[in-house]
Parts: sequence; C-alpha cells; structure tokens
Amino acid sequence: MNRLSLNQITTKGWSLPEAVQGCVDAGIPAIGLWRDKVAEVGVERAARLCRDAGLAVSSLCRGGFLTAATADGRRAALADNLQAIEEAAELGTDTLVLVVGGLPEGSRDLAGARRRVADLLAELAPHAGDFGVRLAIEPLHPMFCADRAVVSTLGQALDLAGPHPVEQVGVVVDSYHVWWDPDLAAQIARAGSRIAAYQVCDWTLPLPADALLGRGHVGDGHIDFATLTSQVTAAGYTGWIEVEIFNQEIWDTPGAQTLQTLIERHRAHVAAP
Amino acid sequence: MNRLSLNQITTKGWSLPEAVQGCVDAGIPAIGLWRDKVAEVGVERAARLCRDAGLAVSSLCRGGFLTAATADGRRAALADNLQAIEEAAELGTDTLVLVVGGLPEGSRDLAGARRRVADLLAELAPHAGDFGVRLAIEPLHPMFCADRAVVSTLGQALDLAGPHPVEQVGVVVDSYHVWWDPDLAAQIARAGSRIAAYQVCDWTLPLPADALLGRGHVGDGHIDFATLTSQVTAAGYTGWIEVEIFNQEIWDTPGAQTLQTLIERHRAHVAAP
Repeated sequence: MNRLSLNQITTKGWSLPEAVQGCVDAGIPAIGLWRDKVAEVGVERAARLCRDAGLAVSSLCRGGFLTAATADGRRAALADNLQAIEEAAELGTDTLVLVVGGLPEGSRDLAGARRRVADLLAELAPHAGDFGVRLAIEPLHPMFCADRAVVSTLGQALDLAGPHPVEQVGVVVDSYHVWWDPDLAAQIARAGSRIAAYQVCDWTLPLPADALLGRGHVGDGHIDFATLTSQVTAAGYTGWIEVEIFNQEIWDTPGAQTLQTLIERHRAHVAAP
Repeated sequence: MNRLSLNQITTKGWSLPEAVQGCVDAGIPAIGLWRDKVAEVGVERAARLCRDAGLAVSSLCRGGFLTAATADGRRAALADNLQAIEEAAELGTDTLVLVVGGLPEGSRDLAGARRRVADLLAELAPHAGDFGVRLAIEPLHPMFCADRAVVSTLGQALDLAGPHPVEQVGVVVDSYHVWWDPDLAAQIARAGSRIAAYQVCDWTLPLPADALLGRGHVGDGHIDFATLTSQVTAAGYTGWIEVEIFNQEIWDTPGAQTLQTLIERHRAHVAAP
C-alpha cells in the first residue's frame, strides 16, 4: 500500500477534491493528477488540497503533443509544456508525464514527427530542470502511433531521453503500453534510473469500440505483473506505482468501490511478489 | 502490375474459382490463397484452376498457431502445419505464411509462449525444406499479441528465423503490422533475403469494433508506402506485393470493383516510387 497511487483518470467521475478525499478514506497515500481536473479548482487550491490531506502527488498528466509541423503549432506546444512544468512544480510533483502526440493531420511522415519530438524535448528539458521537474516520456501502445504518440517502445523513449540529464528527462513504464514488447526486459534493465513512473493496468480483450478505453483492472487480463514489477524493481525503481485505467465501465462504478478493487489487486498482483 | 498479387481474403465474398477469374479479368498476375477457400474446392482442383489460368500463387495463408502449452495441442499444431506445408507445395507456392498464435487460454506466460514457437519452428523447418516450402513468420501488430500472435516485431521474427536455413524460414513484412516500429528501417535492412513476402494495406482510424477488420486500401491511411517499399526493395526483395485487407466495408464491395481499386492504389502508392 505504501507505494500505491491513484491516477485520477481511474475515477474520472470524481472532481479533484472528491478524489483527494477518496484516497484519504481508502488509505491510499498518493495521487497522480490530471491538468483538466486541476484547472477546475485552480493549481494553488489543488496543491493545498493534496498537501493538507497528506497526499503525495506522484505525477502530473500530461504534457507533450510535440509533433506539430508548423511554427505556430510548435510555439503553442512549447508554451503549453512550459506551463505544465510550472504547474507540476507548484503541485509538488517532480514528474510530468509526456504523451508526445501523433502524426499531424494528413501527414505520413512518421520519421519527421519523431524528429520534432526530439527537437522540442531539447528545448524543454533545461526548463524542466530549472523547476525541479522531470519530463517523463511515455511510450504508448503502437495502436496509438498515428493519432496519439509516435513514441511506441521503451527503447525508443530511452533513445530520446539519452541526450539529456537523467534528472531532466525520464521515461514512463506503463504496463498496458509495453507488456507485449519482446525487448522489454532488456529495455527496463537499460532504463535504470531513467524510470520516472511505473503505471499499471491490464490488457483485456476484446478491445472496445473506442480503443482508448480498453484497459482493465490489474489481474483481469493478460499481463504478468509479478514478472514486470520484479523487472522494474531490479532496475532500481522504488517510486510510486500508479493505477491508471481508461474504462467506461470502471468510470461508471462508484469511486470508493473502484479504490477498494485497486487496493485488493495491488496486494494480490503487484505488491505481493 | 507485374508484381501485384491479390490476397484472396481481400475479396472474402468470392470463392476460389471466382477470385481466380477476377484476377484474370483484371490482369492481376498472382494470388495469395487461404486454406479454407482452397478446402472448399480441394487442393488438387485449386492448384489446377490457378495453373490453367496462368496465375502464380504468391503464398498460402496460413500455418502457425504454435503456442499450445499441452502435448496434445502441440501434436495437433505439428500435424496441421505439416499438412499446410504439403498443400503449399501442391498449390505451387514456396511461401507458407505463419501466424504464430497468442497466449493459451488463461496463461500470462508470454515468454513461455514465445519459446514454444521457437521449439515448433525447429521441428517444422526441415519438413518445409523437404517440400521446397519456406515458413514465413508474420509479426502481427502488438494489439494482437494476446490473442493471435506473440511475434510482434520484425526483429523478433528475424531472431526466430535466424537459426534456420534462409530457404526454410523467412519473414513477412506486412505494412499494417510493422509500420509504427521505430526500428523498422534497420530491421528491413537486416532481413535481406529473409523477406519471403511483402503484404500491403493501410492503417486507418478509428479502429472498428472488431479490431481485426480495421485495415484500409493503400492510400487511405497513415502509412508511407513509398518509403516502406523502397526499404523493402533496397533489402533485395523482388517478389510479389500482396494486397491483404480485412475490412467489412471492402468485403461488402463487388470484387471486380475492389480489384480496380487495388490496381489504382498499387500504381499510385506502391509501384510508382
């Protein structure tokens, strides 16, 4: 329990104050925040709510969307990410999760989009360092490559992080996105102190009509969390384990009940081994 | 046109005789056959129909499903693949496409399933060699890892092929399954003469309710076929370019119309560069 964190998208129906109270009631010691939920109450109040409740903020979701091909799009992305970095610092977390963005509308230039991610990362990393925040590149499942994230593997995320100081740029290991990767064990070992966040949820089938919402509770699907967690631990990661689930059925479940399931599954599949 | 092949799943509504006639009428010089369609007319008649029509058989789909964890399942898979090898030879193709299978029911042992693929490949490869047939390992998109194919990248397929003679075990490059891979260019170059088949269709969004059926005509989606085709060509591949599309809307389209679209798209996106 002492490493468990609720990523607040898992209880999407809850406002930030409700999610904070829910964690307190359930004894969950940390929360991963989303910027839209933070914006509803304001950054300052969100920070105070977490602090007063004794909740750690494990991460802020999310910056990124760095693939714009136009100068305007690039400027907007820089401005938005600079703001996200400041928000993360004010909220008291050192981890800003980056979903890097997909192909620009009508473009088939995947290599170009990937180069632009590297370029903007280089501009953002020193700013993140100034605020004591680490940019955590999240490789997304390859089925989201076209529309959401052109970073598709942990190895690719590590290649992008490589040129930057480890305290400025890290990576996210999210079970749902990387579990299938035949090179995963080697890349987790390689990642070492680059691992900025470990997020969990399960791969369940069939995929729903909206493929974004196919994630299941830990233990309901095909992922071997004992092995994955031991690999992440062996790489030296001792930080928060965030449960991040996009799933309409779980979103329709009362939040307190969802948190009890999180705790049970964490004990059975993640913490125990 | 002289390298274009119709994978007959693209015209799923057609029987084998109809597909053969459709290719002849459209001037498409080759066809990739499916075992269920071949079985409807019998292997001998299917072979004769293609031969008499002057159609090359670019491949047979499919063998594989090699991940069974039980001795019975393993024996059944061996028997079925040996039969598929003989059918390929009788049909006059040297390429048997392998979809290797997903996790067995209830299993989370992905590494174990992958090991069993390697084990059964080693048993099958010499038999394939005896019949002049090459086992073509097809990496499937990672979204099919749990239920359909635990081989998820071209690099992994090449690692599996590596121990075997190049004329016994090769790989399939299917645009839909591999286009997202950040390591793709390097792995295609590495593949060289291991490339046994090049299949094309496009990645289109949104994914449909049945994720298997989300493939689009070349040119309708996000894949850069000019670059991909030039990489496959630079690796030394001069064989058939098979169009293989799973898509209910295309299946509901008259076959002759689908073939005209195939030809137009082939000229515009694949053959031209």
